[in-house]
Amino acid sequence: MITVKVKPEMEMEVFEKYESNVRSYSRSFPTVFKKAKGYKVWDVNEKEYIDFFAGAGTLNYGHNNDKMKKLLIEYLEEDLITHSLDMATVARGKFLEQFNEVILKPRNLDYKVMFPGPTGTNTVESALKIARKVTGRETVISFTNAFHGMTIGSLSVTGNSFKRHGAGIPLSHTVSMPYDDYFSSNRSIEYIERFLEDSGSGVALPAAIILETVQGEGGINAASYEWLRDIERLCRRFDILLIVDDVQAGCGRTGTFFSFEPAGIKPDIVCLSKSIGGYGLPMAITLIKSEHDIWEPAEHNGTFRGNNLAFIAASEALTYWENKDFSNGIQEKSEMVSSFIDHVIEEYKELKGEKRGRGLMQGIASEIEGLSEQICNEAFNRGLLMETSGPNSEVFKFLPPLIIDKEGLEKGFAIVEESVQTVLNK
Amino acid sequence: MITVKVKPEMEMEVFEKYESNVRSYSRSFPTVFKKAKGYKVWDVNEKEYIDFFAGAGTLNYGHNNDKMKKLLIEYLEEDLITHSLDMATVARGKFLEQFNEVILKPRNLDYKVMFPGPTGTNTVESALKIARKVTGRETVISFTNAFHGMTIGSLSVTGNSFKRHGAGIPLSHTVSMPYDDYFSSNRSIEYIERFLEDSGSGVALPAAIILETVQGEGGINAASYEWLRDIERLCRRFDILLIVDDVQAGCGRTGTFFSFEPAGIKPDIVCLSKSIGGYGLPMAITLIKSEHDIWEPAEHNGTFRGNNLAFIAASEALTYWENKDFSNGIQEKSEMVSSFIDHVIEEYKELKGEKRGRGLMQGIASEIEGLSEQICNEAFNRGLLMETSGPNSEVFKFLPPLIIDKEGLEKGFAIVEESVQTVLNK
Amino acid sequence: MITVKVKPEMEMEVFEKYESNVRSYSRSFPTVFKKAKGYKVWDVNEKEYIDFFAGAGTLNYGHNNDKMKKLLIEYLEEDLITHSLDMATVARGKFLEQFNEVILKPRNLDYKVMFPGPTGTNTVESALKIARKVTGRETVISFTNAFHGMTIGSLSVTGNSFKRHGAGIPLSHTVSMPYDDYFSSNRSIEYIERFLEDSGSGVALPAAIILETVQGEGGINAASYEWLRDIERLCRRFDILLIVDDVQAGCGRTGTFFSFEPAGIKPDIVCLSKSIGGYGLPMAITLIKSEHDIWEPAEHNGTFRGNNLAFIAASEALTYWENKDFSNGIQEKSEMVSSFIDHVIEEYKELKGEKRGRGLMQGIASEIEGLSEQICNEAFNRGLLMETSGPNSEVFKFLPPLIIDKEGLEKGFAIVEESVQTVLNK
Amino acid sequence: MITVKVKPEMEMEVFEKYESNVRSYSRSFPTVFKKAKGYKVWDVNEKEYIDFFAGAGTLNYGHNNDKMKKLLIEYLEEDLITHSLDMATVARGKFLEQFNEVILKPRNLDYKVMFPGPTGTNTVESALKIARKVTGRETVISFTNAFHGMTIGSLSVTGNSFKRHGAGIPLSHTVSMPYDDYFSSNRSIEYIERFLEDSGSGVALPAAIILETVQGEGGINAASYEWLRDIERLCRRFDILLIVDDVQAGCGRTGTFFSFEPAGIKPDIVCLSKSIGGYGLPMAITLIKSEHDIWEPAEHNGTFRGNNLAFIAASEALTYWENKDFSNGIQEKSEMVSSFIDHVIEEYKELKGEKRGRGLMQGIASEIEGLSEQICNEAFNRGLLMETSGPNSEVFKFLPPLIIDKEGLEKGFAIVEESVQTVLNK
Repeated sequence: MITVKVKPEMEMEVFEKYESNVRSYSRSFPTVFKKAKGYKVWDVNEKEYIDFFAGAGTLNYGHNNDKMKKLLIEYLEEDLITHSLDMATVARGKFLEQFNEVILKPRNLDYKVMFPGPTGTNTVESALKIARKVTGRETVISFTNAFHGMTIGSLSVTGNSFKRHGAGIPLSHTVSMPYDDYFSSNRSIEYIERFLEDSGSGVALPAAIILETVQGEGGINAASYEWLRDIERLCRRFDILLIVDDVQAGCGRTGTFFSFEPAGIKPDIVCLSKSIGGYGLPMAITLIKSEHDIWEPAEHNGTFRGNNLAFIAASEALTYWENKDFSNGIQEKSEMVSSFIDHVIEEYKELKGEKRGRGLMQGIASEIEGLSEQICNEAFNRGLLMETSGPNSEVFKFLPPLIIDKEGLEKGFAIVEESVQTVLNK
Repeated sequence: MITVKVKPEMEMEVFEKYESNVRSYSRSFPTVFKKAKGYKVWDVNEKEYIDFFAGAGTLNYGHNNDKMKKLLIEYLEEDLITHSLDMATVARGKFLEQFNEVILKPRNLDYKVMFPGPTGTNTVESALKIARKVTGRETVISFTNAFHGMTIGSLSVTGNSFKRHGAGIPLSHTVSMPYDDYFSSNRSIEYIERFLEDSGSGVALPAAIILETVQGEGGINAASYEWLRDIERLCRRFDILLIVDDVQAGCGRTGTFFSFEPAGIKPDIVCLSKSIGGYGLPMAITLIKSEHDIWEPAEHNGTFRGNNLAFIAASEALTYWENKDFSNGIQEKSEMVSSFIDHVIEEYKELKGEKRGRGLMQGIASEIEGLSEQICNEAFNRGLLMETSGPNSEVFKFLPPLIIDKEGLEKGFAIVEESVQTVLNK
Repeated sequence: MITVKVKPEMEMEVFEKYESNVRSYSRSFPTVFKKAKGYKVWDVNEKEYIDFFAGAGTLNYGHNNDKMKKLLIEYLEEDLITHSLDMATVARGKFLEQFNEVILKPRNLDYKVMFPGPTGTNTVESALKIARKVTGRETVISFTNAFHGMTIGSLSVTGNSFKRHGAGIPLSHTVSMPYDDYFSSNRSIEYIERFLEDSGSGVALPAAIILETVQGEGGINAASYEWLRDIERLCRRFDILLIVDDVQAGCGRTGTFFSFEPAGIKPDIVCLSKSIGGYGLPMAITLIKSEHDIWEPAEHNGTFRGNNLAFIAASEALTYWENKDFSNGIQEKSEMVSSFIDHVIEEYKELKGEKRGRGLMQGIASEIEGLSEQICNEAFNRGLLMETSGPNSEVFKFLPPLIIDKEGLEKGFAIVEESVQTVLNK
Repeated sequence: MITVKVKPEMEMEVFEKYESNVRSYSRSFPTVFKKAKGYKVWDVNEKEYIDFFAGAGTLNYGHNNDKMKKLLIEYLEEDLITHSLDMATVARGKFLEQFNEVILKPRNLDYKVMFPGPTGTNTVESALKIARKVTGRETVISFTNAFHGMTIGSLSVTGNSFKRHGAGIPLSHTVSMPYDDYFSSNRSIEYIERFLEDSGSGVALPAAIILETVQGEGGINAASYEWLRDIERLCRRFDILLIVDDVQAGCGRTGTFFSFEPAGIKPDIVCLSKSIGGYGLPMAITLIKSEHDIWEPAEHNGTFRGNNLAFIAASEALTYWENKDFSNGIQEKSEMVSSFIDHVIEEYKELKGEKRGRGLMQGIASEIEGLSEQICNEAFNRGLLMETSGPNSEVFKFLPPLIIDKEGLEKGFAIVEESVQTVLNK
């Protein structure tokens, strides 16, 4: 029995009629979705889709995970507190303990957990604020093709000109620097270091450098570990705080809980959202090194800092990280994706494809304008959800739930390959 | 059976140890909450609290409303899609139809619905952006003691200096004007009009004027309907967009669905969040007059625009507005609050109390420094959740769930009166 | 013998052909000027003009003052150093000594003299910088209809929307407050004080308040001495620096050397330019209370800080202030202007005239659109230089050289009266 | 007979006592100057100095040029109009005609002349304003180690962090890009082009690119002609206005009237000041391509736009450009300087010297901290005025008046060489 009765044939009209023109995914995926489980989604016509999109990295544990679902239903049934601002609750306390036990302690990380409002842009805004407060400086360095969110503070550190223009005001107090490999010859660090050490460079010593280790929206650009270490070194040299925005690349997306673990760096501030909530419920946290946690009480607040349903699912999600199995599984599946990408680039040279990314956050950039979008459209028609990325939508990306199995991956690959063939008229 | 097992005696330590210093309500209400129903909340020691706080206006329909709870559990059980970014889903479509049918059509309002990310500050940021885009202007006029949120755009239109200072950067492109009754002699409109019409005033013609009809955080200041109409008139005269931030005062808090209905004005943009989600789940919408809905697709986006659980509860919550009963009930209870306030001010002259607010958003401002906070502390000890408001926390405010019954109100009043007596040593 | 030979009949074309469209006074006074002495000017056609304009307050000592002229010629003849950046020179030293002896010491003022670049906007920019440095704050409060200059810092504290718009960027870090008498009921101080003392007002505690005691460009609005004292009191109460921009109203224009003397206030910073140079040569100084003179060497610099010709004339000009005669003379002539204005307003009621200003900085505001401009045009044709002021050019103003004699004034008055009659068709 | 009588022995005290701490050159050159002629200056003790400083490029025609002096004295004697705001005057008209005839027409340049206020920072501010108005954009790209002036607009495009910090507010709406040769491998253009063409770069399409062809204050860095052409090409490709700030490098300093002539580029806007006035009197002009001269009348104004003495000297100065002799002479002297620099670098390897600059705007950068300053101090003691340049004062620079003769140069060189030897203990 389905709770909400709808007439399938009328549905897309509802959105066109009542929803703002700003709507986006209902255009890329023009159908009305109803049900979802694991790596699969169904629309009102019961058409099945394999999900290579995963809520843009929010559904690392898949749709409607059974264990979390059970806990959520129990929580609701028992009338445990649902909304609580940032009051102390059992669910919040449980999450804090669990996060410390499973994530921070084993990694020897001394972070305080801040609940900044349950969206990615909220955690980024809170990170920028505390970095400015700690250092007393105003400028923040961000990177070409960075994406950090839609509110003015986060937009100021976002690279995309279309999004920035949407601000309607000039965005300031930030400087955009070249991301790793932005130039063919790898000089990004030299460039940044020169600007920082030259007192005549016109770039003030910043409060923070904010970065994604893999740029999800900006084209699945993965920074090398060496570059990340170089950036950390610059931060230490000039007393700049290092903020890693791990909203999309974190929570296992690239193989480890934090995406920066293999680089061996220790950011001063880490932004988490998307999959931290486990079940796709709105949640975000900001991790702040204890020594920098100089907030005044309530200096940053917000109504939905106490989404207890999210805490319940989030705590359960952390059990995936109690041993290495989950992490190892991601590694294996990453290699499958990697091999498939190699195959496609090699086999379909007309694509002029370039491999991008890391872990289960990989994609193919095609030089040919419009091609990646066509491939995604074909894939949608064939039952695969996949989206593009990059300033010119030049990348089609593989972002399946991390819990996907090999069968799911292979089915998805088959659809991708068919779509590529169709688009290339092969 | 309680899902999450906790040792009550250790709990507050968990928050002190692991959570950032920024935490706030766990300081005002120093206990660990566990369960909630209607207008009551229980902590881990099974102490019961009457809720005169309602999630700062998020729980207008009370905690864990049974009808919504049933629908949420069913939705979860059937594995209907939970997280969907802004894809079309059955739950989203249902909400759009219902909102149009129950709210917009009967009020003859032609708004498009935007899902800007599920928090108050997200809807405010989206409102500012579209207003600037529509008009091509940059300045926004906001008011003394306004509160609109914690991200840089929203902070720029917020009055509180402590919060503003937290930005760590100068906040710009905004001008703060006196709210209604800011000066003892009512000249706010004259002041604003003069600045707008004088080309030498130093204040640029703004993109928008943003206001709360009752300032929730700024001291429960209620604007008169006349002032609201005057502001609308100024907006029309100078082609300025009028944004009403109805995040706290909307969804029935002052007696009507939109707080501005009795004033007879039609804002260009309306921000809703908090109680729009019905069950306290994160949700926000921005209403934009059709003619101003000139967003490009995806110009403002965000991960949690598709919180389907919230849509399910939100749709159910709208049924409260299918007839006048709910509205009338709020009116009656408002009068009870009003009478009680009159009684307290009259009876306890030492309070130097002043009545503030409208509907179920009323409070008492005490001139005596620190007194309102002491009263709230006493009330907490006696089992009542109530918080202060205003730049110097000078107001103690009554913000019960709208579904509270007379018994609940009276119990709450009794605790308030005892607390006042205690604080005044009577 | 005239040094530069010109063909008079071709001249205005030269300006139309070669000079930028931004040119202004060559439009209001469409003739080519050649010679000047005292309060008189002659164009290439030997038409004589009485000067009620005085270089917008730059020629307080009249055109080409004989004593200064003699010293300038001697200085040039002897090849004494002309351009010297801010090196120590005899002429600069002489000015510093003289200024201290004649101006500062007798008034018991302890200011350091800064040479910030030889224009009004330069002194204002330097004043804003040092005030921000001293206080560590960013906001500056300025006033409706203020005029402080055309560079971005000065424009930010200027009221005129046309000029502000010319910046091409949003102007920030400033707040515009109502000048004295901006509202019919005099509440300006109450407004400002309320904004400053309320921590929820949205207006940050400023580094400085900058004001003109009489607003020259903004409509010849004279602040009352009481208001000036109230502003100083606010500054002291909130540790705000008080900057008086005395560029136009200073150097005797309103009767005393500093315009603020009769109010009994002691600004922290004073901006002087225009007539400080004596002969109309570019010069500006910024006076900074010793305790606030915390500049690092060269923190503000500029090429033309050492205009030695200006120093020579400026030192001579100061001799006017060695006794009370000059000051008393201004007072007498001010009363003549005042009486004449009363007469015009009374006699020509169709003007709907309002008296404005103080000292030899007075004018008549006419409610009738365009009238003041017409009167100035008529006056020009009749041989009088006079300009309008105010956001809508609604004031025609009397700004003769302070050295004008009674005959000169009366001749000017006669032309004004004729012009008024002509415009009113009398 | 000396006009101003001073007691030499007391003089430096005057400046220490009365002048602000911001004073700078009176510290580097701690004596009181009195007289000057050609390339020589004398102090009150009649000590003679050779001038390798030339008012930081203001005295290209030397001190107190006899022809100009004669005209100035005549102008004064005849009581021709001295101060005239921007009214049409004979002297202004003469300059406009002369400038068009001698400079613009022969170079086939179609510029309108704007008088923006008589300082370098005024012309830069006006250039930024008109560029933003023409394009409707806000961002301006400037370069590392650029110097454009001390007012907020000009500071925003200046690289030096000490000067920028002096603003007391964050400087915005500008982006600092690497100047030619900023990196050892010459990639500046590639960097800039990539930022401009990538819509995800975080750098908005700018209104203008502003540059000095040789950076005078930033370390005597000379851009290659190729780089200048590349920058112009970028400007054309992206419809960006090119502003050349020729305040220091213009008026013949590098061998041609405009410094950019040999590069074959045609900037949209040119800023001139310093030597444009001929005699060291305050003057500045902004040249704007006719098609971009869309100013409204009076949109940018200022009191000292009519410094007629400066116009008289400026017109005379232009006669130097009526044939090639002056230009050729500069070329010869430049080669002498160049050879001398080669000699010093070769002979005194301990200097670790690097040659910088072009024309009569050359210098030696020494890697050894503090050395260049010591050399300048030694030179001063020996009777040579010379100053350092660069973010760490690492360059000692040769900026003699262009009219210097070979004897003067050689005398200066001898002092420099002695100073180098002394400092190196040779």
